[in-house]
Amino acid sequence: MPAPTGLQALSPWCARLCLGVERFLRELNPDGLAGRPLVLAVSAGSDSTALARILSLLAPRLGFAPVAAHLDHGLRPDSPDDLAFCARLARDLGMPFHARAADVRALAASERLGIEDAGRRARYAWLEEVRRETGADAVAVAHHLDDLAEDQLLRLIRGAGWPALGGMPAWDPPRRLLRPLLLTPKRHLLNFLDETGTAWREDPSNADPAFARNRIRHDVLPLFARENPDYLARAAELWRQARQDEAHWAEQAVLAGTEEPGGDGSLLLTARTLRDAPQALRLRLYKRAVESLGPGQTLGESLRRLDAAWLARAKGKRLQFPGGKEAVVEQGGVRFRPSKNSPEVDTSPGER
Amino acid sequence: MPAPTGLQALSPWCARLCLGVERFLRELNPDGLAGRPLVLAVSAGSDSTALARILSLLAPRLGFAPVAAHLDHGLRPDSPDDLAFCARLARDLGMPFHARAADVRALAASERLGIEDAGRRARYAWLEEVRRETGADAVAVAHHLDDLAEDQLLRLIRGAGWPALGGMPAWDPPRRLLRPLLLTPKRHLLNFLDETGTAWREDPSNADPAFARNRIRHDVLPLFARENPDYLARAAELWRQARQDEAHWAEQAVLAGTEEPGGDGSLLLTARTLRDAPQALRLRLYKRAVESLGPGQTLGESLRRLDAAWLARAKGKRLQFPGGKEAVVEQGGVRFRPSKNSPEVDTSPGER
Repeated sequence: MPAPTGLQALSPWCARLCLGVERFLRELNPDGLAGRPLVLAVSAGSDSTALARILSLLAPRLGFAPVAAHLDHGLRPDSPDDLAFCARLARDLGMPFHARAADVRALAASERLGIEDAGRRARYAWLEEVRRETGADAVAVAHHLDDLAEDQLLRLIRGAGWPALGGMPAWDPPRRLLRPLLLTPKRHLLNFLDETGTAWREDPSNADPAFARNRIRHDVLPLFARENPDYLARAAELWRQARQDEAHWAEQAVLAGTEEPGGDGSLLLTARTLRDAPQALRLRLYKRAVESLGPGQTLGESLRRLDAAWLARAKGKRLQFPGGKEAVVEQGGVRFRPSKNSPEVDTSPGER
Repeated sequence: MPAPTGLQALSPWCARLCLGVERFLRELNPDGLAGRPLVLAVSAGSDSTALARILSLLAPRLGFAPVAAHLDHGLRPDSPDDLAFCARLARDLGMPFHARAADVRALAASERLGIEDAGRRARYAWLEEVRRETGADAVAVAHHLDDLAEDQLLRLIRGAGWPALGGMPAWDPPRRLLRPLLLTPKRHLLNFLDETGTAWREDPSNADPAFARNRIRHDVLPLFARENPDYLARAAELWRQARQDEAHWAEQAVLAGTEEPGGDGSLLLTARTLRDAPQALRLRLYKRAVESLGPGQTLGESLRRLDAAWLARAKGKRLQFPGGKEAVVEQGGVRFRPSKNSPEVDTSPGER
């Protein structure tokens, strides 16, 4: 598999695909892509093989230095073959290659996690390690538009609300994750691999219908695509609209004034901030404050109950949030803090 | 089937259900519910039978006078039995009853519509006729929370964007349609019918998996509910959030200044209005202007292209919208009007 020397060695269709990814990367404008290493997560599957191939073509144009990284999950007898495949791919593309073997089953048992969760955790921890070692600013992962459409449905099912419903970000600064293919349909990636004669290895876990994600992938999304052949383009547009609204609400939050930190690890949204904010903003300010205290899903119903308590100036009214957090209505505003009495308490959404 | 004389004749569970619907109706606050007739659309199916029963209990409390209306679609041999059932239901509940027979097959043939579409059109036209005849302000229809969840998915598939994605309104002033059960799950309606010993007739068309709506109903929503048993509550919350954001953007549009009508049926969004509006608002102002010119779906991609043309001040740049509409970038802003040359033209969303 000799690597083409550049975009000009590709078919016009493949070159256009690469230029689309390049345009998207420039639009995302992650800090410091040029002149720095960029870690590429590779699994030997089609998506990440396409990612490595496309980004190796874009690297000289965008000025970053790609580095391939593979974690052997050790879950299938042939996982060393995946590792060998990735090593050869990196060599053919002229990239440094980092690999490690993890015992995902042992991690799942010791941390009481599902195998999928344990694998994801081990993988991202290792990728972050490689990023630090190599001095890279980001880790590029191969999520594509079909993954995004899936993610939107999973978020819909969980009740994520808007704009979170729009799906995963393409550039996630806290996690240093970059998703260059996020608006590229999977069938375009497969076509790219086919046209460039690039081999890849099937990942059998993707075909397992036991996971909710796979039911959505194999049953729901094909139904949606039959109903609307442009469905994936609509998913991409929903993502763009969510990013736009997210930026809007973030800006409004800054204009409204941020929370004031208390000495005890609490945060206060002041009466002044809340008075000037319309409801659509107030609920988002509450959500941001709750989520800044730590993990735990914040449901819209709870935020709405809190807002009603604030509007009624129900002084002393306390509302619990999942993850051992609470909000209290005070004279001077709404205070958010770790729960004092009952860190495990979670009020049911149906409660008045 | 003797009607209970009021909420106190019901089980506590059934009374709570009715009070929930009452609270929702008060919250919607449709103009003039009190002291006026309210048309209830009845089909003999479970949903509208529950609607008639619940609203007959709430009528004295809310001060409206319910009137039942049934259209015989003539699509099944036993449709006269549906009519007879509705007539008896109305008599038992002490409501005036209006009925008519329509030839839906003939309408479908003459208007080149699908049977479902033709039935819907005939039904809503007839309900509007009864509304005018009786001097009612609104027609109440039996859409419930499962219908809303379905509607959200159909809107997602079509690419409706936010906040339209939140689903159908519960009070639709232009169409005078009221949906008192919109946040009530269907299983609660069935339980209500069961507990009150109310009979109803199965509608076989609901069980036909040929329709996209029914595939969503029978395959997709059950999968979502298995993944998240609270899924319907999340759908209701998404609806509430959409209503909140819709109100927010409508208010922002008013503050930004409305479109200026031109003499030729065109509308101008002035440079001043657009200059002060953030992108999240500008795209919604374009959408509102395009949609005010007539029907046709307005995709986000097109609005985004228009915005890029406006930001580049690409004077003379013309963008087509489905339904024979166009937008033109002018010195003084963006003008929206019926297309002059090519009323049928529709630019593909993928076009640059």
